[in-house]
Amino acid sequence: MTAFAFRIDAVDGAARTGAITTPHGVVRTPAFMPVGTQGAMKGVHWRDVKASGADIVLGNTYHLMLRPGAELIAMLGGLHKFIGWPHPILTDSGGFQVMSLAELRKIGDDGVTFRSHLDGAIVSLTPERAIEIQVLLGADIAMQLDECIRLPQERRELARAMRLSLAWAERCKRAFETAAATAPGHALFGIVQGGDDRELRAAGVRALVDIGFAGYAIGGLAVGEPQHVMLDMIETVAPLLPADRPRYLMGVGTPDDLLRTVGRGVDMFDCVLPTRNGRHGLVYTRFGPINLRNARHAADPRPLDSESRCPAARDYARAYLHHLVKANEMLGAMLLSEINLFYYQDLMAGSRAAIAARRFAEFCAVTMEGWAKGDLGAL
Amino acid sequence: MTAFAFRIDAVDGAARTGAITTPHGVVRTPAFMPVGTQGAMKGVHWRDVKASGADIVLGNTYHLMLRPGAELIAMLGGLHKFIGWPHPILTDSGGFQVMSLAELRKIGDDGVTFRSHLDGAIVSLTPERAIEIQVLLGADIAMQLDECIRLPQERRELARAMRLSLAWAERCKRAFETAAATAPGHALFGIVQGGDDRELRAAGVRALVDIGFAGYAIGGLAVGEPQHVMLDMIETVAPLLPADRPRYLMGVGTPDDLLRTVGRGVDMFDCVLPTRNGRHGLVYTRFGPINLRNARHAADPRPLDSESRCPAARDYARAYLHHLVKANEMLGAMLLSEINLFYYQDLMAGSRAAIAARRFAEFCAVTMEGWAKGDLGAL
Repeated sequence: MTAFAFRIDAVDGAARTGAITTPHGVVRTPAFMPVGTQGAMKGVHWRDVKASGADIVLGNTYHLMLRPGAELIAMLGGLHKFIGWPHPILTDSGGFQVMSLAELRKIGDDGVTFRSHLDGAIVSLTPERAIEIQVLLGADIAMQLDECIRLPQERRELARAMRLSLAWAERCKRAFETAAATAPGHALFGIVQGGDDRELRAAGVRALVDIGFAGYAIGGLAVGEPQHVMLDMIETVAPLLPADRPRYLMGVGTPDDLLRTVGRGVDMFDCVLPTRNGRHGLVYTRFGPINLRNARHAADPRPLDSESRCPAARDYARAYLHHLVKANEMLGAMLLSEINLFYYQDLMAGSRAAIAARRFAEFCAVTMEGWAKGDLGAL
Repeated sequence: MTAFAFRIDAVDGAARTGAITTPHGVVRTPAFMPVGTQGAMKGVHWRDVKASGADIVLGNTYHLMLRPGAELIAMLGGLHKFIGWPHPILTDSGGFQVMSLAELRKIGDDGVTFRSHLDGAIVSLTPERAIEIQVLLGADIAMQLDECIRLPQERRELARAMRLSLAWAERCKRAFETAAATAPGHALFGIVQGGDDRELRAAGVRALVDIGFAGYAIGGLAVGEPQHVMLDMIETVAPLLPADRPRYLMGVGTPDDLLRTVGRGVDMFDCVLPTRNGRHGLVYTRFGPINLRNARHAADPRPLDSESRCPAARDYARAYLHHLVKANEMLGAMLLSEINLFYYQDLMAGSRAAIAARRFAEFCAVTMEGWAKGDLGAL
């Protein structure tokens, strides 16, 4: 079994490109992880997720623990085998969904108790159980349990959640070390919390690094704050993180967010935007976002992007994609989600190449200029 | 442009196997046509429709005339180009959907006027307009406008609808001949009506054959009557149809319906069952229908059918398919629809080979035995 490792091949300003080695393969960084919430990518076959260029996907512990259950997945050979994705998988710890989806949640020092949004069952998630579940799933990269809270928020509350997340980080690390015998080569990441407070973030990251993890996530962002706040927090946190460990910005974001935060030293991302927006008629392209519900596409014979790597962006008229969206055809959601997954991966591939060539700033400028120009004169 | 032609290669009892040549390619018969109602196959990429073995698909005139509109599709190069399916397409005439979907419909000698189910617009469909639309769409095989009514029904009403359909058949034929200059090589089929009344069916088919069509459809079945009534009507009609023209049983059916009616001389079918049932968790297999919602699949590591040609039937555990169905994941609908499309095509391919080998009765017996045995001891 290959052990977890992170290698940086090139640095350009604060941006880095390299590779994470995991038991199920190599992840080129910067990396975007599509989100397969319930063990499936909404509207996209696994073969097309791979074809898009994704090296790694994210699975949600909260959803999978409730249905079909971590023990069942383990019995069936683990998450990779269950879903038919033999490549790297990162699982979150369940904390974020407990906060956003579950009812009647009660947070204590020991963990969180909540009512399942599926059947009302009372479920408990402790740091130890979060690790146990992720080991049962067989995640290449597991995440510590943390408490993620929405912004804006009182400083006192931010501090409390940050300290609780640190305490859970320690317990997760111990539980993971115990479990390491059953999951050799797998890795555990810690999560920096602290909201939009620079001092809390700085204090939190130092304490987290003292505990020591294979990689570090920046959590608690993309939860309602403006982009400049998010960027400010990353600028606070990134320089304090060990340079030789991957940095993962959780739940982010738009293509613009991705370029701006790669430029600030982030190596990994996950987000539901490509598939969620695809289901709602919005695609990301080199001409910027395009809303295919718009009537201006109704008779447009042009493909979305004749030069795209993505068959769906090349092979169909905008008029057809518009028709599928207006008619609520599943195929519309399927094609647009695929188009977005390809575009996100293209953005990451372009970033990696640009960083390797020490031309990342130029790449960002050209890419953003393309978005600003729009698609009216595209062909 | 290749002209429409039908060739019979082998006959076994009443069953026949052969090929229909159309401007967009050859259709091996017996043929099952998956239904792409609104210019899309629900939950299945076009490449997978082709991979399933389908030679031809059906498009719905009623839906496409209302959205996005036949003139728009023609302007964009026709239905084949619009949807990205360069193979044969048959379009229905819109009559069936007018009866089942539209509101405030009013049938007169001249045609039918109705309120669109989409936006309430008042739309009129005459025999001439039905042909015009299908020529605009570029259908390889167009259907006459007919009046299809539900069973059971008064004989007087059946006779009226049958006579109206015959009058429309004549007008459609004239309109199609006029349009033939713009659609060389394309074909028009007539539709036999007459409900569950043998005399009406027999009279109707003779009158229709007198008008003369490139192929003949049997309509007005699979509208609520028991299977034995449907088979009785086919036994009445098929021997009266010219042997050298394809026979198309509209809107049928289950795998069992298909085998029993191929055995009575039917060459073509269309039905939404494979995709509709796939979306609801039901798959057709060599072990009979399997409802993946059933809890008995929850921990079953076996694939649906390890010997299937269909990747989705081979590559995933039943437990995963069950999970996707229970979790209402789009991927569940996508995989199960694909499995059904493959199975229907396998049934047609098996029928063709068996008829060619003059062993169709044996093929039916073995296949039905497999369905009856079920899947409990499958692997």
